[in-house]
Amino acid sequence: MTVVVMKEGATVREISTVLKKVESLGYRPHLSNGNGRTSIGLVGSGVAVSTEDILALPGVADVAPVAKPFKLGSREFRSAPTEVAAGSVVIGGEKIIMMAGPCSVESHEQTMTIAESVASSGGHILRGGAFKPRTSPYSFRGLGKAGLEILAEARRRTGLPIVTEVLSAHDVDLVCEYADIIQLGARNMQNFALLDELGRLTKPILLKRGLMSTIEELLMSAEYILAGGNPNVILCERGIRSFEKYTRNTLDISAVPILKRLSHLPVIVDPSHATGQRDLVAPVARAAIAAGADGLIVETHNDPDNALSDGDQSLTLPQFEQLMTDLRPIAAALGRSM
Amino acid sequence: MTVVVMKEGATVREISTVLKKVESLGYRPHLSNGNGRTSIGLVGSGVAVSTEDILALPGVADVAPVAKPFKLGSREFRSAPTEVAAGSVVIGGEKIIMMAGPCSVESHEQTMTIAESVASSGGHILRGGAFKPRTSPYSFRGLGKAGLEILAEARRRTGLPIVTEVLSAHDVDLVCEYADIIQLGARNMQNFALLDELGRLTKPILLKRGLMSTIEELLMSAEYILAGGNPNVILCERGIRSFEKYTRNTLDISAVPILKRLSHLPVIVDPSHATGQRDLVAPVARAAIAAGADGLIVETHNDPDNALSDGDQSLTLPQFEQLMTDLRPIAAALGRSM
Amino acid sequence: MTVVVMKEGATVREISTVLKKVESLGYRPHLSNGNGRTSIGLVGSGVAVSTEDILALPGVADVAPVAKPFKLGSREFRSAPTEVAAGSVVIGGEKIIMMAGPCSVESHEQTMTIAESVASSGGHILRGGAFKPRTSPYSFRGLGKAGLEILAEARRRTGLPIVTEVLSAHDVDLVCEYADIIQLGARNMQNFALLDELGRLTKPILLKRGLMSTIEELLMSAEYILAGGNPNVILCERGIRSFEKYTRNTLDISAVPILKRLSHLPVIVDPSHATGQRDLVAPVARAAIAAGADGLIVETHNDPDNALSDGDQSLTLPQFEQLMTDLRPIAAALGRSM
Amino acid sequence: MTVVVMKEGATVREISTVLKKVESLGYRPHLSNGNGRTSIGLVGSGVAVSTEDILALPGVADVAPVAKPFKLGSREFRSAPTEVAAGSVVIGGEKIIMMAGPCSVESHEQTMTIAESVASSGGHILRGGAFKPRTSPYSFRGLGKAGLEILAEARRRTGLPIVTEVLSAHDVDLVCEYADIIQLGARNMQNFALLDELGRLTKPILLKRGLMSTIEELLMSAEYILAGGNPNVILCERGIRSFEKYTRNTLDISAVPILKRLSHLPVIVDPSHATGQRDLVAPVARAAIAAGADGLIVETHNDPDNALSDGDQSLTLPQFEQLMTDLRPIAAALGRSM
Repeated sequence: MTVVVMKEGATVREISTVLKKVESLGYRPHLSNGNGRTSIGLVGSGVAVSTEDILALPGVADVAPVAKPFKLGSREFRSAPTEVAAGSVVIGGEKIIMMAGPCSVESHEQTMTIAESVASSGGHILRGGAFKPRTSPYSFRGLGKAGLEILAEARRRTGLPIVTEVLSAHDVDLVCEYADIIQLGARNMQNFALLDELGRLTKPILLKRGLMSTIEELLMSAEYILAGGNPNVILCERGIRSFEKYTRNTLDISAVPILKRLSHLPVIVDPSHATGQRDLVAPVARAAIAAGADGLIVETHNDPDNALSDGDQSLTLPQFEQLMTDLRPIAAALGRSM
Repeated sequence: MTVVVMKEGATVREISTVLKKVESLGYRPHLSNGNGRTSIGLVGSGVAVSTEDILALPGVADVAPVAKPFKLGSREFRSAPTEVAAGSVVIGGEKIIMMAGPCSVESHEQTMTIAESVASSGGHILRGGAFKPRTSPYSFRGLGKAGLEILAEARRRTGLPIVTEVLSAHDVDLVCEYADIIQLGARNMQNFALLDELGRLTKPILLKRGLMSTIEELLMSAEYILAGGNPNVILCERGIRSFEKYTRNTLDISAVPILKRLSHLPVIVDPSHATGQRDLVAPVARAAIAAGADGLIVETHNDPDNALSDGDQSLTLPQFEQLMTDLRPIAAALGRSM
Repeated sequence: MTVVVMKEGATVREISTVLKKVESLGYRPHLSNGNGRTSIGLVGSGVAVSTEDILALPGVADVAPVAKPFKLGSREFRSAPTEVAAGSVVIGGEKIIMMAGPCSVESHEQTMTIAESVASSGGHILRGGAFKPRTSPYSFRGLGKAGLEILAEARRRTGLPIVTEVLSAHDVDLVCEYADIIQLGARNMQNFALLDELGRLTKPILLKRGLMSTIEELLMSAEYILAGGNPNVILCERGIRSFEKYTRNTLDISAVPILKRLSHLPVIVDPSHATGQRDLVAPVARAAIAAGADGLIVETHNDPDNALSDGDQSLTLPQFEQLMTDLRPIAAALGRSM
Repeated sequence: MTVVVMKEGATVREISTVLKKVESLGYRPHLSNGNGRTSIGLVGSGVAVSTEDILALPGVADVAPVAKPFKLGSREFRSAPTEVAAGSVVIGGEKIIMMAGPCSVESHEQTMTIAESVASSGGHILRGGAFKPRTSPYSFRGLGKAGLEILAEARRRTGLPIVTEVLSAHDVDLVCEYADIIQLGARNMQNFALLDELGRLTKPILLKRGLMSTIEELLMSAEYILAGGNPNVILCERGIRSFEKYTRNTLDISAVPILKRLSHLPVIVDPSHATGQRDLVAPVARAAIAAGADGLIVETHNDPDNALSDGDQSLTLPQFEQLMTDLRPIAAALGRSM
């Protein structure tokens, strides 16, 4: 893929000329702005591009190939960090964003209790599963639409935007009606049909790294969404599978700085699934912020011992409040706020 | 889960009485036959079962719990091996079944050439991808419906049943019209929505193990299909991800005898994806048969160097013919035919 | 294994009586002190212990079995953190300890330049390899004794204690003459003969986790040294092998809080080997401190591009100085100094 | 590294001239014969070699660089398979070689019983551990010298050559006195000091692949032994560590054909450690032979349930006899005998 970088202060007319040229070559132009400059990516498969011809157009500063297999998601394509907005919350900016809530929406009361506590502890976004991916067909698979309605009610009460998972293309429209951010879970990271579907939206997508997926594969899956036209992708490291069995998964902490270097997309970390153990969540959460993550997604529960799923790894509500307190000086050490 | 095992020669009436009892307790009865006996599994979540009450019914031999997390797929549930029929071909019986063909259906001519060669070499089933899962959104993603039509034409010409992959619930009906066996690929092994969909069919499903899925998770995914009502599941070991990079994946050869021990479902091996290298396919194929696999699925191509996908791991047509010859004495050593 | 815990303020005579009793039962008593209490472990295989008999001895507070497979290294055996002294430097206390220096000692000049810079940047211990484990027999394998002498000279000049690796039992005495801490490398973590040898010393041992080793296996290897009589073991997480290939290894950040919970031994992290890339060292180092590590061991070089080994992952001297600056507020956020 | 290949029928004088030339350039010449030709490897680091000058010498057919990081072990260096002799048994020839015996030598009686049964079942070599590498310092660590003497007595009685493990350089001479083949275990595969030591012998070395070592690293460790001057190396695949936990390790079956392609050294497989389960040994053993292994090393025991180590994975003596019977037709299918 090739990117045309315009000069600072290039005029609308100059940009428009480049867009027409790009279309005439058979490509779909992909516009992005950052650091006061406009870039135009040549998406799709058109005819061979003459660098000289394009450089000769007024307002063009540079014509550069994107060498990486991921194009639209790469730093080569867009050097400025992408900020994704969910309601009034911005992910990928200066502020560390905390998403918290139960693994599963279990009941109205449980969800309201947790949501209010998340809000009062200073959390920014409410997480909660209405459609649950479960290894066993015999396990609790979520409340479905009723769960989404409970989440919407919690948003009304607390003002917290909602992130919740979608499991199939069939449910995308329904989930879209309720969610502020749609989560694509680790087991669906290479569900290419669903990625295509999410690329047709503008709603932010929280894309979790697969247990078995390399960093490059995560960026390639993000590329599906970006190439479909949805620029609002948040990457999430949540642990990979290794031989070590003390933890549920092995958090790949290095993935945080690598993803930030390779891509302009925001990166968050899920310390709950990464460790699978409540008392490891806080140290791993601190590590994630120290490594440069833009936020965290943490499971919290008012009664973890009786949770319908993932109780072992859920923080109690006071533990989450304590975590918020503990993270602030770490964030400050990196020049960020919470 | 509980299984009611009927006495040998139990009458239809006796079986019917048990079925009604099971339904009255709030369960969905799941009938299966093997070794001259009928068993009835109690699927779903009804009220607590009194073993004594059921043992008291006429014709009942035993009431047994299934301890494993996979139930319908376990040897405890059904001790006799399941035989899955695709057209006139039976997978899971005495005969070793060879599935072969191109990674992708690329053209009418390519597919006919390969199909005819597979047939004349003694292959039993034609494989070929019309919907291709690709890491990159910019790669060739298959011919779709046109590809299915080419496969159907190849079946008409050669008589070989067809196995082809489905990527989304949206395409299930379409693929069903053409395929004799529907393949669920490694990356979709835990696409639970799609597993549910395939459970509603009676068409055989070839379920590939995920790159980083445990043997138990594979059996749990099979359980989704079985619990949905489709008993025709074929398991496929195709290599897992490890640190070793000489091969594309690491074939878990031990999975073959383990799956045969834990489950009554047929087990095949894909030496092409497991190794990623043409010259490793034959030794690994021999090993798979020697370990007890019921068959193989092998990529073959008339012109691997110009294949649109997976050329490096595709056998040439003469190599496939040679492989058939090499495997016969191994099969014979295990008391099986080809 | 059983541990006898004495009452606070138990007298020397009371302790002595327990020691004799323990020996009379056929065990070797292992004394440790922490939190104002003395404990006595029963090492070896004597006769069955009567809890009642021992509880009846004066000054005995408790008699407790150690359930974990690692005994002397466990928190059950000793609840207070172990502090290991190397010269005037204490590892495992309130202060975060920084070990830095070249992968290999290459020359007198190189080592003095680096050592002086490490000291002036506030580093606490000088690392440097004189005996180098190399995958290839044709690679540079270190300066041997000449390298040790250069390290000793660097210590004289800077006052920094020295940590350096030993590869074989044959060299233990020689390395002991020069080193303040002896490093046992990842590839030798289960070299049981060498572990036995190091157990006979009192010199501190820096024990690196093997690429292929579980957390429990690391603690079992530490147990070899402790059981041999050497209580001065420092554990080091340095990355494990996974399928991800962007980094040389995958740092298991969760291992830090797990090791601190399971064991009383100090835990440090090696971000250089874990990542294999210079620009990942700082974020991963920050993460390690935030997760609770007691220190770091970092490769630094005055001219990394011409280093004889591991140049890609070595910080430049100014980068190390910057790292020290960046880590201070993180340490402070955890209530620790540097 | 460079290899000089002599013409067929090159005279002793011609070879001698090349040897002198090689030495004069500062290299240590390494002679090998295969397929009726002599090759001379240039080992060590001499001055730059002029291909033309050497080609001009009488009797020289070719001067070729070895591109792979392993040199002396590569097929480029020596195209004919190496045959390693242990007593009258040849490993790496047409015949499949079976090594069998207990994990640990436990007693005189146990060892005689097993050895006689191995011999009468048609096994070729007796295995048995006198020095045992154990994860825990508190486990049984072998009978040491007394165990070696029992093995020697078993050899006298049965005529079977002996393979046994060495754990440290200190024991090499002692083990050498008794063993026909010295085993270097998986955990010591990168114990470079011990590899150096074994390179000084001429005794055959059975080199086991590390649990998390790549195929290339295995060949590099073999290279240490070869470069030291000992050409008698047998490679052993014994399973690597993966996320799958049904088996103790994951046998990398593809490693067999890969090693045979990359190297001229014999390759055997250890199905006992690879699987950790008695009832998986036979299918995996069949697979190994089918994949092209030159032999197997199998744990057998007269009373596995009371074995001091590895009882779960040891075949009973009748099971080993049955295995021999089952393997014969597989060997025959590959044109080999047992």
